[in-house]
Amino acid sequence: MKLLDLYAKMKGDLNQIELELERSVSDDHVLLSEASLHLLKAGGKRIRPVFVLLAGKFGDYRLDVMKRIAVPLELIHMASLVHDDVIDDADTRRGQLTVKSKWDNRIAMYTGDYIHGKALSIAAQLPNPQIHQILSNALVQMCIGEMEQIRDFFNTKQSVRQYLLRIRRKTALLIAISCQLGAVAANTDRTTANRLYRFGYNVGMAFQIRDDLLDLYGTEKQIGKPPGSDMRQGNITLPVLLALQDPQIRPSLLNEIELIRENGGQKDAGRAIEMIRKSDGGDMADELANRYIKKALHALEGLPNVTAKKNLFDIAHFVGKRNY
Amino acid sequence: MKLLDLYAKMKGDLNQIELELERSVSDDHVLLSEASLHLLKAGGKRIRPVFVLLAGKFGDYRLDVMKRIAVPLELIHMASLVHDDVIDDADTRRGQLTVKSKWDNRIAMYTGDYIHGKALSIAAQLPNPQIHQILSNALVQMCIGEMEQIRDFFNTKQSVRQYLLRIRRKTALLIAISCQLGAVAANTDRTTANRLYRFGYNVGMAFQIRDDLLDLYGTEKQIGKPPGSDMRQGNITLPVLLALQDPQIRPSLLNEIELIRENGGQKDAGRAIEMIRKSDGGDMADELANRYIKKALHALEGLPNVTAKKNLFDIAHFVGKRNY
Repeated sequence: MKLLDLYAKMKGDLNQIELELERSVSDDHVLLSEASLHLLKAGGKRIRPVFVLLAGKFGDYRLDVMKRIAVPLELIHMASLVHDDVIDDADTRRGQLTVKSKWDNRIAMYTGDYIHGKALSIAAQLPNPQIHQILSNALVQMCIGEMEQIRDFFNTKQSVRQYLLRIRRKTALLIAISCQLGAVAANTDRTTANRLYRFGYNVGMAFQIRDDLLDLYGTEKQIGKPPGSDMRQGNITLPVLLALQDPQIRPSLLNEIELIRENGGQKDAGRAIEMIRKSDGGDMADELANRYIKKALHALEGLPNVTAKKNLFDIAHFVGKRNY
Repeated sequence: MKLLDLYAKMKGDLNQIELELERSVSDDHVLLSEASLHLLKAGGKRIRPVFVLLAGKFGDYRLDVMKRIAVPLELIHMASLVHDDVIDDADTRRGQLTVKSKWDNRIAMYTGDYIHGKALSIAAQLPNPQIHQILSNALVQMCIGEMEQIRDFFNTKQSVRQYLLRIRRKTALLIAISCQLGAVAANTDRTTANRLYRFGYNVGMAFQIRDDLLDLYGTEKQIGKPPGSDMRQGNITLPVLLALQDPQIRPSLLNEIELIRENGGQKDAGRAIEMIRKSDGGDMADELANRYIKKALHALEGLPNVTAKKNLFDIAHFVGKRNY
């Protein structure tokens, strides 16, 4: 099944989630609601809710319970985007003005705090304390990941391990717990919830590596902004680290990154991208992404044969597909 | 009993809370821990933990349970301070450099997020879902209060009611739920928890009004910074709103506030303070604070006669005392 078909099939439930997302941030302070809704309306793939709903299908699926997991997870993702935009000083996201740019940094900061609070208060309607433990622990880990990203800006000495740990906290964890919490809330057995966690974690790692690859190998049309924005911002991603391992390329690439840093990210990353594309960095990163996809598929294997298993299988394959 | 004697009496348990506060932010990312500990070490009255512990004495008091309420509440307060300092562009707090000034705004933002997350993950160790509902709802309300404060900067047309709603969210609510959650975690009956909530709410309102009075009537030595800093920042507090009700003072005070606004808060607030001190604004605000204290004492009345009741009574009287 194609991904679009899957979305079409899930449309009814996803629409419910969308309504609930809007409702959750609509009834308080005008400006906070406006800023939150602006963010919501900018769209997004709602991939976390999709994972929650599919994971829930392995147990006792009740949409009213699933909502209370899917909505908080999407909100937590959104809150992290608002705060990221402040940090990255980003003016647009998905072609829309960011909250910090349409309003200001102060409003973006409190909008993020507010969306966080809303996320937790919706999840708090569920009685299972394990859910709150998993959620709040993920929040802490995500902050650590964000801080690591700041610390490692323009750090060309970081190891691949450091990169992997960072994207684990920044991206993979939230996708992992989307799968896990969907299962926990649907009262699956513990093994199923753990397998789904592992599936989500590995898909999440592959997803972030692919995203980092796209920023260097994609066209402006595909990415929605000029390639190399990660690098201009100082975010040294996997293909860059792997390209730096090539002694032929290393000196000139280091030099180019240093120039970008000195120019405060104003310098065009075109030359650096050219060097990386000449190296094996892309292929090696691609291979690592595929290894994560394989692990994700392996985690699925032991699960009962419900339709959702096939859907998760398809999503993993889609994430694994090179489209740049 | 004097307040210092009460702190001395509670020293053993408060030291445990202090240790737990430090431990809670110590074991993760170096920079996040450093920034959080910097904030912790700057001290503070730990008034929220004091309320939690005293409220717990009305039920089944177990320090290991009380900790999981007292620590999160103090952490939530701290997180709001870090984010406030970003918004207020404040360089010092309690004589120490703020996180945003010692490091930068980005680190202050994530430090706040991190402390929030830590607070929630400690509270999540308690199984009672009511606790998570109360906590997360308070987080949402606090954000709304902060946003209202931003929206109402230099707004001389706001009503007293608007001011009261704002300080309710910004300050009183967290003190109210400190009392309530201390009781809930100690398994008191619902009436006791509700009475303690009302006690905390009213003390919190009086506390903020007194704090706002102090900023206009205190000496630089008492406040730790020059008087009028609220006004320079645009925060129009109760005594100002009440002084504006005096037709003799209103035009010149409005004019002076406008000048401060035009100067981006750089202008000395001395003249405005002088006008306010000539008005009845201070006395009227003082009277309102006393009314809240009376309501707080009234809420205490029906509670069982444990020592903590006398302690709460003393705290309310202390908050009620005019010391400027």
